[in-house]
Amino acid sequence: MLISAAPVSIRDSLIDEYHRVRSVSRDICAPLENDDYQVQSIAQTSPPKWHLAHTSWFFETFVLGRFIPKYKPFNPKFDFIFNSYYVTHGEIHPRAARGQLSRPTVEQIYDYRAYIDDQITRLMQSASDKDWPDLAEFIVLGINHEQQHQELLLMDIKHNFHANPLKPAYRENLPRPRGEMRPMSWVLYGEGVYQIGHEGNAFAFDNEAPRHDVFLNGFRLADRLITNAEYLDFINDGGYEDPVLWLSDGWSLIAEQGWKHPLYWQPNDDGWQQFTLGGLRPLNPAEPVCHVSYYEAEAYSRWAGKRLPLESEIEVVLAKKPFKGTFYESGLLHPAPARHGGAQWYGDLWTWTSSPYTPYPGFKPLNGAIGEYNGKFMSNQMVLRGGSCVTASDHIRASYRNFFYPNERWAFTGIRLADDI
Amino acid sequence: MLISAAPVSIRDSLIDEYHRVRSVSRDICAPLENDDYQVQSIAQTSPPKWHLAHTSWFFETFVLGRFIPKYKPFNPKFDFIFNSYYVTHGEIHPRAARGQLSRPTVEQIYDYRAYIDDQITRLMQSASDKDWPDLAEFIVLGINHEQQHQELLLMDIKHNFHANPLKPAYRENLPRPRGEMRPMSWVLYGEGVYQIGHEGNAFAFDNEAPRHDVFLNGFRLADRLITNAEYLDFINDGGYEDPVLWLSDGWSLIAEQGWKHPLYWQPNDDGWQQFTLGGLRPLNPAEPVCHVSYYEAEAYSRWAGKRLPLESEIEVVLAKKPFKGTFYESGLLHPAPARHGGAQWYGDLWTWTSSPYTPYPGFKPLNGAIGEYNGKFMSNQMVLRGGSCVTASDHIRASYRNFFYPNERWAFTGIRLADDI
Amino acid sequence: MLISAAPVSIRDSLIDEYHRVRSVSRDICAPLENDDYQVQSIAQTSPPKWHLAHTSWFFETFVLGRFIPKYKPFNPKFDFIFNSYYVTHGEIHPRAARGQLSRPTVEQIYDYRAYIDDQITRLMQSASDKDWPDLAEFIVLGINHEQQHQELLLMDIKHNFHANPLKPAYRENLPRPRGEMRPMSWVLYGEGVYQIGHEGNAFAFDNEAPRHDVFLNGFRLADRLITNAEYLDFINDGGYEDPVLWLSDGWSLIAEQGWKHPLYWQPNDDGWQQFTLGGLRPLNPAEPVCHVSYYEAEAYSRWAGKRLPLESEIEVVLAKKPFKGTFYESGLLHPAPARHGGAQWYGDLWTWTSSPYTPYPGFKPLNGAIGEYNGKFMSNQMVLRGGSCVTASDHIRASYRNFFYPNERWAFTGIRLADDI
Amino acid sequence: MLISAAPVSIRDSLIDEYHRVRSVSRDICAPLENDDYQVQSIAQTSPPKWHLAHTSWFFETFVLGRFIPKYKPFNPKFDFIFNSYYVTHGEIHPRAARGQLSRPTVEQIYDYRAYIDDQITRLMQSASDKDWPDLAEFIVLGINHEQQHQELLLMDIKHNFHANPLKPAYRENLPRPRGEMRPMSWVLYGEGVYQIGHEGNAFAFDNEAPRHDVFLNGFRLADRLITNAEYLDFINDGGYEDPVLWLSDGWSLIAEQGWKHPLYWQPNDDGWQQFTLGGLRPLNPAEPVCHVSYYEAEAYSRWAGKRLPLESEIEVVLAKKPFKGTFYESGLLHPAPARHGGAQWYGDLWTWTSSPYTPYPGFKPLNGAIGEYNGKFMSNQMVLRGGSCVTASDHIRASYRNFFYPNERWAFTGIRLADDI
Repeated sequence: MLISAAPVSIRDSLIDEYHRVRSVSRDICAPLENDDYQVQSIAQTSPPKWHLAHTSWFFETFVLGRFIPKYKPFNPKFDFIFNSYYVTHGEIHPRAARGQLSRPTVEQIYDYRAYIDDQITRLMQSASDKDWPDLAEFIVLGINHEQQHQELLLMDIKHNFHANPLKPAYRENLPRPRGEMRPMSWVLYGEGVYQIGHEGNAFAFDNEAPRHDVFLNGFRLADRLITNAEYLDFINDGGYEDPVLWLSDGWSLIAEQGWKHPLYWQPNDDGWQQFTLGGLRPLNPAEPVCHVSYYEAEAYSRWAGKRLPLESEIEVVLAKKPFKGTFYESGLLHPAPARHGGAQWYGDLWTWTSSPYTPYPGFKPLNGAIGEYNGKFMSNQMVLRGGSCVTASDHIRASYRNFFYPNERWAFTGIRLADDI
Repeated sequence: MLISAAPVSIRDSLIDEYHRVRSVSRDICAPLENDDYQVQSIAQTSPPKWHLAHTSWFFETFVLGRFIPKYKPFNPKFDFIFNSYYVTHGEIHPRAARGQLSRPTVEQIYDYRAYIDDQITRLMQSASDKDWPDLAEFIVLGINHEQQHQELLLMDIKHNFHANPLKPAYRENLPRPRGEMRPMSWVLYGEGVYQIGHEGNAFAFDNEAPRHDVFLNGFRLADRLITNAEYLDFINDGGYEDPVLWLSDGWSLIAEQGWKHPLYWQPNDDGWQQFTLGGLRPLNPAEPVCHVSYYEAEAYSRWAGKRLPLESEIEVVLAKKPFKGTFYESGLLHPAPARHGGAQWYGDLWTWTSSPYTPYPGFKPLNGAIGEYNGKFMSNQMVLRGGSCVTASDHIRASYRNFFYPNERWAFTGIRLADDI
Repeated sequence: MLISAAPVSIRDSLIDEYHRVRSVSRDICAPLENDDYQVQSIAQTSPPKWHLAHTSWFFETFVLGRFIPKYKPFNPKFDFIFNSYYVTHGEIHPRAARGQLSRPTVEQIYDYRAYIDDQITRLMQSASDKDWPDLAEFIVLGINHEQQHQELLLMDIKHNFHANPLKPAYRENLPRPRGEMRPMSWVLYGEGVYQIGHEGNAFAFDNEAPRHDVFLNGFRLADRLITNAEYLDFINDGGYEDPVLWLSDGWSLIAEQGWKHPLYWQPNDDGWQQFTLGGLRPLNPAEPVCHVSYYEAEAYSRWAGKRLPLESEIEVVLAKKPFKGTFYESGLLHPAPARHGGAQWYGDLWTWTSSPYTPYPGFKPLNGAIGEYNGKFMSNQMVLRGGSCVTASDHIRASYRNFFYPNERWAFTGIRLADDI
Repeated sequence: MLISAAPVSIRDSLIDEYHRVRSVSRDICAPLENDDYQVQSIAQTSPPKWHLAHTSWFFETFVLGRFIPKYKPFNPKFDFIFNSYYVTHGEIHPRAARGQLSRPTVEQIYDYRAYIDDQITRLMQSASDKDWPDLAEFIVLGINHEQQHQELLLMDIKHNFHANPLKPAYRENLPRPRGEMRPMSWVLYGEGVYQIGHEGNAFAFDNEAPRHDVFLNGFRLADRLITNAEYLDFINDGGYEDPVLWLSDGWSLIAEQGWKHPLYWQPNDDGWQQFTLGGLRPLNPAEPVCHVSYYEAEAYSRWAGKRLPLESEIEVVLAKKPFKGTFYESGLLHPAPARHGGAQWYGDLWTWTSSPYTPYPGFKPLNGAIGEYNGKFMSNQMVLRGGSCVTASDHIRASYRNFFYPNERWAFTGIRLADDI
């Protein structure tokens, strides 16, 4: 079985869930002008309209095409242009050229979404009890896939708007996080064999399984993310000029790119400004530093005399912590300072780990195109954990493994320190 | 004086002309969906909305900013993003990033155009008689600049639509050229000193002056363009595989790019199709071959045992020929076969010449940003002559010098043979 | 302490060892023409003369410069051009430009080596008993560093000679490996906590420490490497054409590079030939397949229904196996078929593991330039284990961690399968 | 006929000439260490040993292979690696990879040269009177080809040595040019039809023909080259920072490359130094500024309120001037200040012209591989005239057309001003 499927005894609740999640994509795009749907600022991002179509294509291909005999696609050519990485499914349109697709138009893509929603609803209502468990499993996967793209939508929109010299705000009246910087505390865990990986019947992606034993030395983890103020100390101490602090590939990168600060920071006469989904704001020293690459996170940790956590260390801790934090639902779309007396474990920012993204022991890629979902990306990327302020709160869990290349920083990424004991 | 200015005694006719030309830009964009305004398929092209804004910026900067004391720009930031190549005028937004500018929106850009039109109209109406000649000169330049961008709009729209795997048509019901292929005839000119370059009071660009003597050997020019049928003979004879036929830089280019045919051709089971502004059509053998690079034109001429004309040779002939041909006004937006009994001198396709784009003897760049208009591009490009099916008929003349890099082929370019006698 | 230092009670034996290892570098270069010393075929390789100078620079900088007060370098400018990656030690000459350094000449570099050997000998003879342990530790490190470059010399020479269309042999009369292909057997290990990492007093690199616990699921390892015959089955089964078999980054790479077979293979009329340090030879099906990238090794293992081993799995097995295999001393400079009745654990080819190169728990980079030795490369590379036919037999051990980027294949790399049980 | 052949009645004198010119190549390489023969610092240059072999290959292919029935080449594989641009003659080794060819060795290449010299001598001695004129024509072409590569050898050696951080001198005791800066004078020519192009029976390249009429406006030419002192005024006046002075492609280039001064200049504490074939020297203000690109020459001329000359203008003047100047035979290998009372027309530095390299009216490429000699390069390059301090004095003439890309500056290039009258 591809995934740990939810017990889906109650059909109506899944239909509701489908519509609820699908409507979030529309909500995210509501502040956009038609023009904004078209932009692809770098090859790694996609135009918002592409996300809207691709997530629908996913339901069309892996649900409607699978469960409806002789299903007629909305437009057969969409399979070519909205297939993302499913190489086995067919030839694909070059990723970097997505911004060139003015057709289908935004309006046509919303028609496409409506068509898919209608078809999926009918299918869910009419499926036989025999087919239902299998169907439900793929619907759940499609819902989770859509949630991933909702986070990508917000990441990509931020990058697109930042690329514009006019520096427009995605939402003018976005509320700002509050709070002041508080001291860092540490949680300690002793040496021993721990278990990580997904367990139970709730949904999880294939890459979170199988649950397995790991041996960990004693360690401690910071109970909050590194703040802008702390990161400024690193910058002001010459962090970006000292090769000793950097991995070799990172040092080459910052030299080549001329990086001197996190993405979205810019100096002005009074100090630093930061571009957010609410536009340019003065840099708030108490907020967690965000949009740093793995190399920057790793260099910071070395400068601080600490290290980045292993993904297993974070998972062990997360599994014991209350599920609270700044998620998409907060409406902030920006990380908030850790509260006094409160920890900062989930949400706010994805934490870079020092763990390359590799398969768990016993992981096997699955059959068919759906098998490409996660396994094929298991090289050259680093694992991130915990979710962010643009992650849906019902999409994240202790075992969740996100991954990006170590040079990437348009995701909502931050730094959490670890240490040996 | 920058240009050979028209006698502009009648103010109202220039106001009318201004509005007539400005409205053509809107006409060209009328078939576009909002999404289509945003696309930039390659670095050399610009999104349609950018053209609409840039041409307005041109009037704002070089007319309103010059003639209205303390003129308040529509939006001061537009100067940065809609300045194209006027380096001396200020810093500019990177050309390749124009497709990332979702803001200002299409709607805002049309507002900008309306604002500029209103301001220009008032200025033209209220200018003193003393200021009028100078003002009129810049208005005429702005009108001609807008016409250049109208041709670019059609070139760029074609390229953008072609980049889309859906191969949408810009205009579904575009009429098709008619006619059959007819034999080629030649016109002969004897050796001697000829004069070329602009003369008279009508408008011309700075690069057409000064009028000057050239010595030409005896030559003959074909009275029509090379057809698709003729170019197919070249292809079928192995033209793209024989290095002897190619300039060294051209041979490297076609190897690197894998070129085997003109841009916009694609093979299908029945033969060749060609992408046009009316969508994909079967290749018409009688039509002139279009969208070839200089290298392809030059290789074809060598294969045919002839050569490409000098720009001076074409100008000498054009100056004697009746002004007829397929222009923008024909509504075809595609080159037509040469008619029986009729020559094909102006329009249809820009003819590649073997003349690099260099200054005429005595040419001097002008003062100020406007001086960048033409002179700074006088390296590495080749001259093309005669206008095309997407050129306004009142924009072209015998002395008109167009120019592109020898590897470029998204312009409406064709091949005319020449020979020594 | 940087390394686990050998007990160096007997000074003379270390002096002998120093001279013995240094002379191997000269032996390796003996078959070269003066011209061959200068070539750098790709940015990752270095000209042979550079290796000869750089290893001497290493002794000069980290031994002579450290232990001799007011040491006068042979040539102060050498520090700039023969410093490799020690960014903290000073500015460095661009890696890709090493092939441009015709000066110092080969002759001058041999003079440099002689000078360093003389200085080191005197220093070792005259050092006080108090200084000796510290000195000995750096001498041992320099010896091991030289041995690493001896393997690189042979890798780079092979690549340089292969780049030449004349396909010259490095050594014309190199003996050929013998033997036939034998069936594969498997060794089994049960689930549990194992220890890996260097232990004891013998020399090891910093990246092999500290010794630590790992939890391993039950696994089995193939007792020999994959052969050319087996790899041909993969090729003939369409292995290079099926995206399902490949990691996403690997699939992009082979498409971009047009890879269809391992490096150094070339088809001829009778089948396959392979370029070796003895020149072109017919491909021997019984020999281990060599010069494959991580992506190819991983794709092969997936095609075979198995997986690549973890580095911990290999180390656990190696630690229990007799130390036998094809090393540099065999004189073959090419991998040999596994013998009947005999395993193939050490030597022949470095085995790609599925373990990214990361620090062991508790690893801390050391102070000073020498601290860059290993830690700074701990991103984006994969670990390889076991040594090869161009590794000195006294340079390899169970805990030895080699590392290359997953796209690289000029090292002597091979494939060993693993499986879950 | 390919070339305007010399009357070659006296066989022995041509044999002597052959040996004399061939020996100059050896003289030029005499100061080189074996290591220096191997270096290719950039793709446009070639290793010295490649030049030595290629010029021999030229005689082997176009003389021995043509005139000796069943000629057996020295090594049949040399045809692949020492063929330069004669695409029609066969497949060629990638230009940028010439530095990787350690084999054949320098020694083998000198053997190759000796073998060719011997074969050519025998052939010249034994050819029938009937064959002689045709043979002599190709010998003369090969001699001229060798002289072109002698200049390239010196250009490339200079670039290779400069690429080395040790900044070695090609010849330590090279004499230095003497003299002081003197005022510039102008020569004037009136408007009219002039003739340019080669005439007479002496050798000339195909691109110098046919002789033909050109119409020139009245012009004047500076009687000496621009000096370092004058160019420093341009630099100090912000010449490299003012976009108005630059062609658009040039401005992009200097921004991308960070050019702030001519190639081979470097600032030190006391001012400027310049790298020469005699090593680093303080910049001599009276010497002509050298190693500038076309863009720099053009920008300088614009800054000076003048322009660059047309190639026809220079040829008209050169044809009337005494043949004197600093050539290879001077032994300076560097340009000298113009003498008081003396003009500076030939030699010292190739003068950039504003004329793109295009065919003369009536020029036709010739049959066979030899036809590629010049014609295929007739795009994107600019003509230079007059020869330089590294040109053999018997290789240059008024009609000689050299050509380089406008961004190139490793040739011995300089600036001569022109003006309209």
